[in-house]
Amino acid sequence: MRIAVFAGDGIGPEVTQQAVRVLEALALPGLELVEGDVGAAAYRKHGHPLPAETLAIARSCDAILFGAVGDFDCDGLERHLRPEQAILGLRKELGLFANLRPATVFKGLEDLTTLRPEVAAKIDLLIVRELNGDVYFGEKGVRILEDGRRQGYDIMSYAEDEVRRIARTAFTAAMGRHKRLCSVDKANVLETSQLWRDVVIEVSAEFPEVHLSHMYVDNAAMQLVKNPGQFDVIVTGNLFGDILSDQASMCVGSIGLLASASLAEGTYGLYEPIHGSAPDIAGKGLANPMATILSAAMLLRHSYQMEAEASRIEAAVSKALAQGVRGGDLGGTAGTREIGDAVVAAL
Amino acid sequence: MRIAVFAGDGIGPEVTQQAVRVLEALALPGLELVEGDVGAAAYRKHGHPLPAETLAIARSCDAILFGAVGDFDCDGLERHLRPEQAILGLRKELGLFANLRPATVFKGLEDLTTLRPEVAAKIDLLIVRELNGDVYFGEKGVRILEDGRRQGYDIMSYAEDEVRRIARTAFTAAMGRHKRLCSVDKANVLETSQLWRDVVIEVSAEFPEVHLSHMYVDNAAMQLVKNPGQFDVIVTGNLFGDILSDQASMCVGSIGLLASASLAEGTYGLYEPIHGSAPDIAGKGLANPMATILSAAMLLRHSYQMEAEASRIEAAVSKALAQGVRGGDLGGTAGTREIGDAVVAAL
Ligand SMILES: CC(C)[C@H](C(=O)O)[C@@H](O)C(=O)O
Ligand SMILES: CC(C)[C@H](C(=O)O)[C@@H](O)C(=O)O
Repeated sequence: MRIAVFAGDGIGPEVTQQAVRVLEALALPGLELVEGDVGAAAYRKHGHPLPAETLAIARSCDAILFGAVGDFDCDGLERHLRPEQAILGLRKELGLFANLRPATVFKGLEDLTTLRPEVAAKIDLLIVRELNGDVYFGEKGVRILEDGRRQGYDIMSYAEDEVRRIARTAFTAAMGRHKRLCSVDKANVLETSQLWRDVVIEVSAEFPEVHLSHMYVDNAAMQLVKNPGQFDVIVTGNLFGDILSDQASMCVGSIGLLASASLAEGTYGLYEPIHGSAPDIAGKGLANPMATILSAAMLLRHSYQMEAEASRIEAAVSKALAQGVRGGDLGGTAGTREIGDAVVAAL
Repeated sequence: MRIAVFAGDGIGPEVTQQAVRVLEALALPGLELVEGDVGAAAYRKHGHPLPAETLAIARSCDAILFGAVGDFDCDGLERHLRPEQAILGLRKELGLFANLRPATVFKGLEDLTTLRPEVAAKIDLLIVRELNGDVYFGEKGVRILEDGRRQGYDIMSYAEDEVRRIARTAFTAAMGRHKRLCSVDKANVLETSQLWRDVVIEVSAEFPEVHLSHMYVDNAAMQLVKNPGQFDVIVTGNLFGDILSDQASMCVGSIGLLASASLAEGTYGLYEPIHGSAPDIAGKGLANPMATILSAAMLLRHSYQMEAEASRIEAAVSKALAQGVRGGDLGGTAGTREIGDAVVAAL
């Protein structure tokens, strides 16, 4: 078991440290953890947010436990040197094409969302977001038009195999849940979306038990407010997935508890909390490490099929929460280390 | 005063009819209303969702009162024949580049949103969405790659003058409100967004009193759930605006009350309710015409500077609401005509 640990910037290192403690507390045979630099931290040390050494470490491991990247003073840098290029680069270089973002309201924490408790309590959805294509990775630039005007452009595209692959991941996920899949696109305007929709319909023939529906992205953004409980699995492209998965997370309220997986074909995956690097509270021991700890659970489940160990971690987090151990983000006072202690004790 | 009335599909005709009654009740000197066909209705009659006759009528008028377009059985049509091409075509042909979508919770209707009442009550924002550019109108298509795979593509782009124009509209709107403007983009990934951000910053020099901030679109989708009260004016591109303005509308809850304006340079504008054609309840006299009536008020304000008459309509709608006249969408039982009667009476 060889796991890369990329803690990154801001609160990344402190929350990752607690997740590592939890992994170590499980006493997994042959567990090896390999640290690497990413983000602004890597830029300062090596002049690049995703140094070749880091990529080599990633390739030598089975999975990556990722903290967060991003720092106040990197906005002025050229795009390819900014911290977020670390995560974009890892996704592309390692073929991490499927982002799984579960959103469920934790029992007893219905009060944390701005949605009415009875609406929030019904949220139990999984967003499957494509990560390797779309307008993220197409040709882009600023060109000067004939009349001298500057024009920024980015090409959005999806090829059929890219759609097929993520659709299969989503249908398979739906089979393991309530067998309802909603594909989100903007097929009334975008040709990329029309192809997306056509291919998703083709793939649906392989999964006759799954009920497939389609929704325009503007309507999906409305429905996530109006009745988020209607969704089981949502599958969508990189850009719409970026927006909708963040919206869905906020509907849940407790962002400090939400984990995510970015999977390649096979068992390789990168696991990270969905919260960012929060530079304003970094280094103060205030950050809630639960989302990173739950990311470690996802790692054991998806990259090692260690369902029992993954459930053990999840149960320990639930137990700590039930005991009233809550970070500032959940309206409590527990610090980073204290929360880590509580979860380790609950194991 | 020559106003085009394009009622369109589904509930479009019935809600537009009530808005026309309200306009006529004002006894405006020289008011002339000219009807035209759009959407699926126009396709059935003329073979095109935006016939040349309709466009000619639009050009001969000062403003358009628009109902809604869209019908169940048009999904199979080629893209350029679908009902939504009517609205996209009018936007482009008439240079309607600025979509103004106010979102405010009506007093006494805080219960209609799924947000907690104390969060919803603070919503008072205006989304200014660019309508003539972005990935909506770039080159698009499906091509066959060398290896035979199909690929859908759409080019996203903004030129500096397109950004400058909508930015000025948004800054001007902010000057008439609380002087806070939030520009939403995805500059950490998109070159189109980076240019957008650069130009918005350039324009901000012309409006030193307005406080300008920037937000990534994924974060904006979160903040609209977490704390929508933080926003005054939001300016964004066509695609992000499509998603965020619908999300914001649903945060308000009462979609049957929300109007919108799509403005060209000068005083020309198209005014429409933000709800769609709702084919499921069409022709039954159940639709709430208030959003269309309020769109007529926006029309008088923006295209004719008739502030007094616009306010009179708005006050009449508020009065009808206060009297308990509510459509099914607001939890009431009043029908389309009954609501029209109540507003006319309240005038
Ligand atoms: C940091 C940014 C490039 C990234 C994205 O847009 O994918 C982030 O928002 C995410 O969702 O992981
Ligand atoms: C019907 C559709 C093309 C349109 C859009 O995407 O602009 C609609 O959603 C809107 O917001 O007016």
